[in-house]
Amino acid sequence: MPQNNEHLKVVVGVEVGGSKIRTGLCREGLKITRPLKLSTKSERGAAAVVGRIARAVRDAVDEADLALDDVRAVGVGVPGIVDADTGSVICAPSLRWDDVPLRQQLEKELGLPVFMENVGNLATLAAYMVELKSKPATVQGIFVGTGINGGLVYQGEIYRGVNRSAGEVGHMVVAVGGAKCCCGNKGCLDALAGRNALNERIREAIKNGEPTVLTDLLDGDMKRIRTSDLRKALRAGDPLVEACVKESARFLGIAVGNIVNLIHPEVIVLGGDMMEAVSDKMFPIIQETARKYAMPGSFDECRLQLSVLGDNAGVIGAVILARQMTA
Amino acid sequence: MPQNNEHLKVVVGVEVGGSKIRTGLCREGLKITRPLKLSTKSERGAAAVVGRIARAVRDAVDEADLALDDVRAVGVGVPGIVDADTGSVICAPSLRWDDVPLRQQLEKELGLPVFMENVGNLATLAAYMVELKSKPATVQGIFVGTGINGGLVYQGEIYRGVNRSAGEVGHMVVAVGGAKCCCGNKGCLDALAGRNALNERIREAIKNGEPTVLTDLLDGDMKRIRTSDLRKALRAGDPLVEACVKESARFLGIAVGNIVNLIHPEVIVLGGDMMEAVSDKMFPIIQETARKYAMPGSFDECRLQLSVLGDNAGVIGAVILARQMTA
Repeated sequence: MPQNNEHLKVVVGVEVGGSKIRTGLCREGLKITRPLKLSTKSERGAAAVVGRIARAVRDAVDEADLALDDVRAVGVGVPGIVDADTGSVICAPSLRWDDVPLRQQLEKELGLPVFMENVGNLATLAAYMVELKSKPATVQGIFVGTGINGGLVYQGEIYRGVNRSAGEVGHMVVAVGGAKCCCGNKGCLDALAGRNALNERIREAIKNGEPTVLTDLLDGDMKRIRTSDLRKALRAGDPLVEACVKESARFLGIAVGNIVNLIHPEVIVLGGDMMEAVSDKMFPIIQETARKYAMPGSFDECRLQLSVLGDNAGVIGAVILARQMTA
Repeated sequence: MPQNNEHLKVVVGVEVGGSKIRTGLCREGLKITRPLKLSTKSERGAAAVVGRIARAVRDAVDEADLALDDVRAVGVGVPGIVDADTGSVICAPSLRWDDVPLRQQLEKELGLPVFMENVGNLATLAAYMVELKSKPATVQGIFVGTGINGGLVYQGEIYRGVNRSAGEVGHMVVAVGGAKCCCGNKGCLDALAGRNALNERIREAIKNGEPTVLTDLLDGDMKRIRTSDLRKALRAGDPLVEACVKESARFLGIAVGNIVNLIHPEVIVLGGDMMEAVSDKMFPIIQETARKYAMPGSFDECRLQLSVLGDNAGVIGAVILARQMTA
């Protein structure tokens, strides 16, 4: 693929999340310049979201005073199962996508080579390469945002399983018959511990008359509780929000325990915007719960750590992908 | 280790289960001769069980008209976490063992080299080598007996994780706050789907007045419901036993779905004596449930199959271990 000055061009990384599309540019190394956010608006349907992804790429390039001609490739992280051969998103429950020919449509809209991968896999790869300096033999990533993504890097490479769907931590059932998940099943981690799940619990409690500062903070409009609102409520010592955040943390701790018992990775990285925002409340509980649920002695041989990449892990991973594929 | 005619000697394989100690001899190939069973009697404590394991080995050798001098090595599969360096069993919840120096004690009793490994790992290795002809890249084994053991073989070798506890399927939590497990936690697969769990559910239902042919079959003594009793009850069309067996199968199906979502192995092998005995009732439900819980399309890319090794998988795995370690 690299011809002429292709290797000098920038690469664009995109993370498609349940509520935000994040983009970033990278010329060399793995420092993201010009990070931008755009609402996903998944309720408008797949075609509209693909249009918004293309717009996000164009905006990012324009903000950097560049043109699409200056771009070597685009990497896209998707919260679902991706068929790298056909370029289709087989399913992305949080976006309600089934069989969306994302690569083809984006390449047509942008006139650029596009590469796709599960965003949990990409974020884990980013954590492995950037913050773990490509050292651990096995890294499991768990990223908590609107929903929960995950990935596994084994011996330096994304581990996809027999075909591609490994690492889907968000759809591990930990509470049979529990809360309804966007995938159609019940009791998945995603439906118990992600931001959507947390907000649902908070709204339910408010309906049941439990007091919270959120009612004032959001002026009664509880439809959209943002991570920053949760943080404000925690700072104000709000008991309801604190209890709900701790419950999410306990579910995450059980999931970490399960992963230790099944995979026993060298490092487990916790990231994502919700994790980053409320990690001081969540991390100790996740740690304590995982230690309790892992087989005796085995938890302490894993390293559980917060990702320092924050919101950027998925975008950095997408940049790594685009660069690897055009190297 | 092989000196003189060492390589001509037999190898003894031992599987230590929650209710039975199984032994078998092997001169060459992987055909087990003289399989024997002895009750574990774990309630007598670790020292007594170790004595019984030694006795089981001696009996097996004697039954084959051989002496301990004719034995090259003993392989032992243990239902817990094993420290191969020190030869200690770090923990084996179903036996209530903590830090038992099994290898040292057995070597002292038998005067033979002893090698140990988690029995789920060994049984998976046996399934991989014997029935799968060492072909699949990833094999997850799930063995349902008194409790539930598991193991993962990746690229031809037992995958132990960062140190040793990977593959512990039995202690994956699938029902937070559910039935109490022998490990001290609640809602582990072991406490929901193993034979102990199943029997507990049956006893509970009988206490609540539900009718079952087991009451007659066992003459009112419900303390020890054996796998053969369950089979008889199923053949008699007993609705209670059928419902309880199907419930175990549903939990196993959810666990298989979780494994597909996390690891996506090429083959998942189901084995163990309870699975073997009631597979006609369980297998279709496990399959259907796993398909529902795995991410769309991903289950059909795994091969779910019943092990043909039956009761012998652990013993064959122990033979493979002993042979590999003295090769």
